[in-house]
Amino acid sequence: MAAIDTDRLAEYEAATSKTGAVMTVETPFASALQRKIDLKTKPPGSLGRIEDLAAQIATVQKTLTPRMETCQLTIFAADHGIAQEGVSAFPAEVTRQMVLNFLGGGAAANVFARSVGVDLRVVDAGVSGAPFEAEGLIDRRIAAGTASFASGPAMTDAQCAAALEAGQILGADGAWDAVAFGEMGIANTATAAALGHKLTGIELDILVGRGTGLDESGLSHKRAVLEQAAARTGDLTPAKALAEYGGFEIAMMAGAMQGAAASGRIVIVDGFIATAAALAAVRLRPETRAAMVFSHRSAEQGHAALLGALAAEPLLSLDLRLGEGTGALLAWPLLKAAAAMLNDMASFDEAGVAGPA
Amino acid sequence: MAAIDTDRLAEYEAATSKTGAVMTVETPFASALQRKIDLKTKPPGSLGRIEDLAAQIATVQKTLTPRMETCQLTIFAADHGIAQEGVSAFPAEVTRQMVLNFLGGGAAANVFARSVGVDLRVVDAGVSGAPFEAEGLIDRRIAAGTASFASGPAMTDAQCAAALEAGQILGADGAWDAVAFGEMGIANTATAAALGHKLTGIELDILVGRGTGLDESGLSHKRAVLEQAAARTGDLTPAKALAEYGGFEIAMMAGAMQGAAASGRIVIVDGFIATAAALAAVRLRPETRAAMVFSHRSAEQGHAALLGALAAEPLLSLDLRLGEGTGALLAWPLLKAAAAMLNDMASFDEAGVAGPA
Repeated sequence: MAAIDTDRLAEYEAATSKTGAVMTVETPFASALQRKIDLKTKPPGSLGRIEDLAAQIATVQKTLTPRMETCQLTIFAADHGIAQEGVSAFPAEVTRQMVLNFLGGGAAANVFARSVGVDLRVVDAGVSGAPFEAEGLIDRRIAAGTASFASGPAMTDAQCAAALEAGQILGADGAWDAVAFGEMGIANTATAAALGHKLTGIELDILVGRGTGLDESGLSHKRAVLEQAAARTGDLTPAKALAEYGGFEIAMMAGAMQGAAASGRIVIVDGFIATAAALAAVRLRPETRAAMVFSHRSAEQGHAALLGALAAEPLLSLDLRLGEGTGALLAWPLLKAAAAMLNDMASFDEAGVAGPA
Repeated sequence: MAAIDTDRLAEYEAATSKTGAVMTVETPFASALQRKIDLKTKPPGSLGRIEDLAAQIATVQKTLTPRMETCQLTIFAADHGIAQEGVSAFPAEVTRQMVLNFLGGGAAANVFARSVGVDLRVVDAGVSGAPFEAEGLIDRRIAAGTASFASGPAMTDAQCAAALEAGQILGADGAWDAVAFGEMGIANTATAAALGHKLTGIELDILVGRGTGLDESGLSHKRAVLEQAAARTGDLTPAKALAEYGGFEIAMMAGAMQGAAASGRIVIVDGFIATAAALAAVRLRPETRAAMVFSHRSAEQGHAALLGALAAEPLLSLDLRLGEGTGALLAWPLLKAAAAMLNDMASFDEAGVAGPA
């Protein structure tokens, strides 16, 4: 097995294709990695996206024998001032109720996490009302919900910086091989659409969708509210866009993605909201992109466009539109299998199998 | 929870949509099932294909509390006389070598099975050469490979019936909640293309692909060989098509799918070859279709067309083209998660969460 030239690893990390896979750059590590994959007992390339995933995992972990056994999902919860404008099919108090549901183990994210063997923790990034008095909840409250960005900034620059920093610390801690991030926040598809619009210039008509289930008139109203809110400001820096139109859970998640990537960890990105956070994270720190695995294409209208802005091709397409990290959880077994392929599958020589004629 | 009207269950089982999900037929069971799914703490429909999958599993198992904890993959191996015509990129002896690789635990199917917690067994349905003397292999050899269907039937009617019957018994045994079937057989994409063509009338140009990695001239040759072989016969009954153009592993897999479905078990269908077997199984016994979950869309050219003939929408699309049951294995965690959703997720009432405003 070729020794790894660690000095040149930055090159390989930057050289990711749109699927996040290593491109065929001629470096000792990339060549050794591709050779290892091609000598496995299978027709070359026949494991498709799983081979790309294995290559990305090895590249992020800087080893030909990566470890992909443990994963943790962190759910960030926060409320959104924009909910006051009637942009969601569900009432705002559901954010708080769902936090208790997560803590009680009854939400979809809990059920999926147990099913696929992922650890789960819940962070209060800024839910409306009084602080929770609940066992097991991690308190990183920035405030009791953001202000409505219909009439002014969602948060101050200081609040935004505090959310990013809290996230960076949370993303870097622990010893999991991969981390996933989920969110809960009534009206946060409105927030993600506005933020995505400001970060990319993609039109709101494309980015605004039905969220938890708006009908046609609800959708029109949501579009009108967001058009007006977006018109409040001109071009913004990524940091300014996040403060003006972000949410506490989105900013904290963006920070957590940066923290996890900086500590050499794979980041599994969930759906529409998480992809808006990923976009903010990458615009603030481009090197974060190489660690990201995009788990699924959501049924929420704007997701495909935000994925496109990140040149991301997600693994799954299951018409999910729930958030909470549910899509990331369902992708986790694919990451485990990809690393196992690289580590445990026999080579043609080891198995005494003939190669192509 | 509503009592299940078992007399009417046949209706619900027949009423599957193209994704295999229950259609909205007004029956006590179907209504109770949909109500149970809709009362979970999530926006209605927000778990997309996972909700359809949960409904299908519950319908096949005839209960609102289905069990989806254990799964077994059976790999059927056999050789193909058509391999003599030079239609594969790999030499025929690789079938035998790969059987030993499966038994040694080094193939992709072994690695994925361990990774996702699925049991694995290997059946010799008719590999060329002498019978194996290998620990752990299940011997159901019909013959030492099929004859070349370029010049005559691949197998006799009696051999075909014996393969189907052996498969039916293997598919019905054990106590797994779901079963998956994989295959190994050099040249079996040629067999599957010819069989699929005879079963559906879809043109060979659409169904013939590169298999394990033919180049352009290899692909042209494969097409020419199959065009000539197909011209040997006119319209055939499904049983006759299977004998004329099938393989022992394909016929045995078709039988196993029937046996598993008849014993009320979910059948996870793998890629191109397995879908050709599924097509034969369904043409012989249409009620088999309701038990089938289609795991993935293969990169092998003809797969999408065969899926279309079964009105199947697969769960995954990962550019796999290896066979062995690898795609079925990667879909297994989705089935587990779907059943867990139905069984373990809290309802709005249970969790004290407000519904849509």
